[in-house]
Amino acid sequence: MAKFYGIGTGPGDSSLLTIKAVETLQNLDILYTPEAKKGGESLALSIVGKYLPDKLEIKSRHFPMSFNDGEKIVAWNKVADEIVADVKEGKNVGFVTLGDPMIYSTYVYIMERLIGSIDVETIPGISSFSNIASNQNFPLVMDKEPLIIIPCTIDEEKIDYALENYSSIVLMKVYKNFKEIVSKLEKNDLIDYAILVSNSSQDGEVVYNDLRDINLEDKISYFSTILVNKEIKKTVKVG
Amino acid sequence: MAKFYGIGTGPGDSSLLTIKAVETLQNLDILYTPEAKKGGESLALSIVGKYLPDKLEIKSRHFPMSFNDGEKIVAWNKVADEIVADVKEGKNVGFVTLGDPMIYSTYVYIMERLIGSIDVETIPGISSFSNIASNQNFPLVMDKEPLIIIPCTIDEEKIDYALENYSSIVLMKVYKNFKEIVSKLEKNDLIDYAILVSNSSQDGEVVYNDLRDINLEDKISYFSTILVNKEIKKTVKVG
Repeated sequence: MAKFYGIGTGPGDSSLLTIKAVETLQNLDILYTPEAKKGGESLALSIVGKYLPDKLEIKSRHFPMSFNDGEKIVAWNKVADEIVADVKEGKNVGFVTLGDPMIYSTYVYIMERLIGSIDVETIPGISSFSNIASNQNFPLVMDKEPLIIIPCTIDEEKIDYALENYSSIVLMKVYKNFKEIVSKLEKNDLIDYAILVSNSSQDGEVVYNDLRDINLEDKISYFSTILVNKEIKKTVKVG
Repeated sequence: MAKFYGIGTGPGDSSLLTIKAVETLQNLDILYTPEAKKGGESLALSIVGKYLPDKLEIKSRHFPMSFNDGEKIVAWNKVADEIVADVKEGKNVGFVTLGDPMIYSTYVYIMERLIGSIDVETIPGISSFSNIASNQNFPLVMDKEPLIIIPCTIDEEKIDYALENYSSIVLMKVYKNFKEIVSKLEKNDLIDYAILVSNSSQDGEVVYNDLRDINLEDKISYFSTILVNKEIKKTVKVG
């Protein structure tokens, strides 16, 4: 029976696709890909490119990054309707999404609109923070500690609480308030337990094993993540 | 040059290995596998079994689950010494570990002992909570929310704080204090936003979309995880 597959592509390197993702891609009739800009390239599509079957129909769809919720909802509804129609016509339909589909992914808004109408299977992917941690041989969390993942776009007091109370912390989207974050890390004696990675597994990857080496006046990339682990001494990448 | 590879196998299903993990396995000379009981089967080994090259030498090593740190340290040191010797002899050596190597994995204690002596490359894997979330079409976290992952073996007040203050929560190892956890979820009006999965992707997988359906007097499996997401209405698995 025809089905819809939401496929996590992982963080950027095609070899971090799972076997299941590749096998699923090879049995698709139609693949929907999200593009942030109209006519722009889809990073998710470039990751899966080499594993796509010849006969595949690719349907690029624009997902507005707008702050206007109404505009987004119209776009999601339209794509969801198209997908339902395709699956009901007997096509196996896929949708690719960066990282893991269940962690900070717009995919969820499509998925929610499909469940109940058609069969939906979601295939997990390697999340960006897992990839960064492994690449740097940086243990995210051990034993009895909690792990907290924080988009730095949240309220400042929530960031403060986390830095004061947890040992294992992933700080995502640190680009906007980077200076403030570094000063918070210093205040909480976490600076020696932190690393920063920008554009992980992509062109222009930058790694700072010591956040003190960064010029705080420089702009840092939108795709920048800080990992903190107070329990484990920083290990130097040897690889 | 010969190298050591720490390879995340993902949660249990061989098809959730990454392409990179499979390619790495196929180029190994020696694979170390952890066994919890002497002579016991390694789950990590069974996951990678079908992808191993014919000429591979498998070295099963016992990792004591003891609370005696001294005993563990002796075991880790011994395995690390063996691995260093093998790599220095020019062998490509691997070590397989369940889930993701940087998230609650004993692998880290081996890795720490190797860095500085030999080249170490870690390959990320799908974590158990990512897999559970995708399998159940259950969004872990969206937008500006933090995601907190908590082993329920930590202090009770830390569990309480998380349940009172976060919307997106993964509760791992809920077997011991399961009754208390369910009552905490009820107290915080989270019970309608929670699912429980035991033995995910293994024989004997059990899923509860409604935690009220569970007999609180029954023992639940050691490998039980509760996912909570207060922001997103529970979606029913249709797959």
